Amino acid sequence: MSGILFDGKKSLADFTLATPKDDLEHFLIMLDALIKPLEDEAKKIKAKITGIGIGIPGVLSAAGDKILKCPNVPILDGVNLAEIITAKMQLPVKVDNDANCFTLAEARLGAGAKYKNVFGVIIGTGIGGGWCLNGEIYRGAHSGAAEPGRMIINFTEPAELEAAYHKLMQNNPSRVSQEAIRGDVLAERAYEELGRFLGLAFANIANLIDPEIFVIGGGTVESSDLFLNELKKTLKQYIMSPEAKNIKVVKAKLGELAGAMGAAMLITHNL
Amino acid sequence: MSGILFDGKKSLADFTLATPKDDLEHFLIMLDALIKPLEDEAKKIKAKITGIGIGIPGVLSAAGDKILKCPNVPILDGVNLAEIITAKMQLPVKVDNDANCFTLAEARLGAGAKYKNVFGVIIGTGIGGGWCLNGEIYRGAHSGAAEPGRMIINFTEPAELEAAYHKLMQNNPSRVSQEAIRGDVLAERAYEELGRFLGLAFANIANLIDPEIFVIGGGTVESSDLFLNELKKTLKQYIMSPEAKNIKVVKAKLGELAGAMGAAMLITHNL
Repeated sequence: MSGILFDGKKSLADFTLATPKDDLEHFLIMLDALIKPLEDEAKKIKAKITGIGIGIPGVLSAAGDKILKCPNVPILDGVNLAEIITAKMQLPVKVDNDANCFTLAEARLGAGAKYKNVFGVIIGTGIGGGWCLNGEIYRGAHSGAAEPGRMIINFTEPAELEAAYHKLMQNNPSRVSQEAIRGDVLAERAYEELGRFLGLAFANIANLIDPEIFVIGGGTVESSDLFLNELKKTLKQYIMSPEAKNIKVVKAKLGELAGAMGAAMLITHNL
Repeated sequence: MSGILFDGKKSLADFTLATPKDDLEHFLIMLDALIKPLEDEAKKIKAKITGIGIGIPGVLSAAGDKILKCPNVPILDGVNLAEIITAKMQLPVKVDNDANCFTLAEARLGAGAKYKNVFGVIIGTGIGGGWCLNGEIYRGAHSGAAEPGRMIINFTEPAELEAAYHKLMQNNPSRVSQEAIRGDVLAERAYEELGRFLGLAFANIANLIDPEIFVIGGGTVESSDLFLNELKKTLKQYIMSPEAKNIKVVKAKLGELAGAMGAAMLITHNL
């Protein structure tokens, strides 16, 4: 878990700790330990902390208060983190999906800053998504929107995009990318296939949502030169509207702290 | 083509003619012939016509003025119908995709009237879609949104949902539905498979857009009892968010003229 001290435009200090996954009490102790040095930093520069924004890799309730499902940190399932932290810290706390936070930051301050309709996709340990429309996160009627990793990509034998991604990358994207960079033909082909699959997934998104721009983030972005051309070619081929074929695909700009920045923006921008 | 005289809430008169597909001049003559009796009717009841809304089965330009692609009536490709009719009739004219018009009417006056986030799907000669958010049509950045028929449903050998629908229904849904109603096992299975495919497609839409309700219209709705249970079961299974599993699926209420009503609402509701 990473925390930042944020002034509305940039990070003033950041701090990272391992995320405890054993029990909630331990998780909350580590969260305290993450926040403490940032509070100290704020005091040092005489800044007032107005609230805390938190991005989590999971699904929120429609009301936005409860974490319904957090597959990578299941100790958070059913937890109302905002309520717990508010009671402890006596500060306003907002919680959102981390890919939503990533997209918000990139759409307002990063690669999508010139655009009003930005779809963000994080390709890392899994495939997450967020959609920022007119500067605000679009969450859907039940906070269930913008989950491209859940897209069914084979209707005859239902399989999800995220599962296909794990299979292509053999659950180890960084090893496969090193192999591809060294010129291993099988690894290169895996990346080409990934580009084609992502291009088809982006086309499905484009034919439903038609954003101005896709912003790609997450660990895989560093090796995106291995798949970006194939992705763009495929996307263009399968978009229906001739004018929508102009949809842009770019890499994220804000780096690893984009998600934390977006979470902080829930407070600084009152979103 | 059907035309109606619309008072903002209901149709006061309607008129239908065959759609000419041979050349644009003939098309425009028939359009005149469609409008004339509606004008006469308006005069008779001393109503003033304030504008003309037109729904077409095709893709509009981002600016909304030009018809970019109209697969079923290709003589309209590249035509600025709004400009032509405005010049002729000296009245404001608006043109939109017919599935958008259908969804607008159902969302404001029909099956979706109690909801703010309505996704409409027309299943008839093809599969079209529209999305109405807070009472307005969401068109996307390039008027390319809400085209579920274009969804790629097999990433290994790319195939579109609409093509799979045609194949399952052997290009003749009304014959297959009659067979299924008579108890033909193969026809029943085709409808079950259609329900499963539509359920997966709706799940893909739900995991991206998360509407409150899906409204189904078009010719196939009359036989929707043959596939609706399978559709709903599959949809629920593949929606990620526990709360989004409550998304409703209902049949359209306004009948065959829903599209014409929505087109007229572009004028009466200034949309």
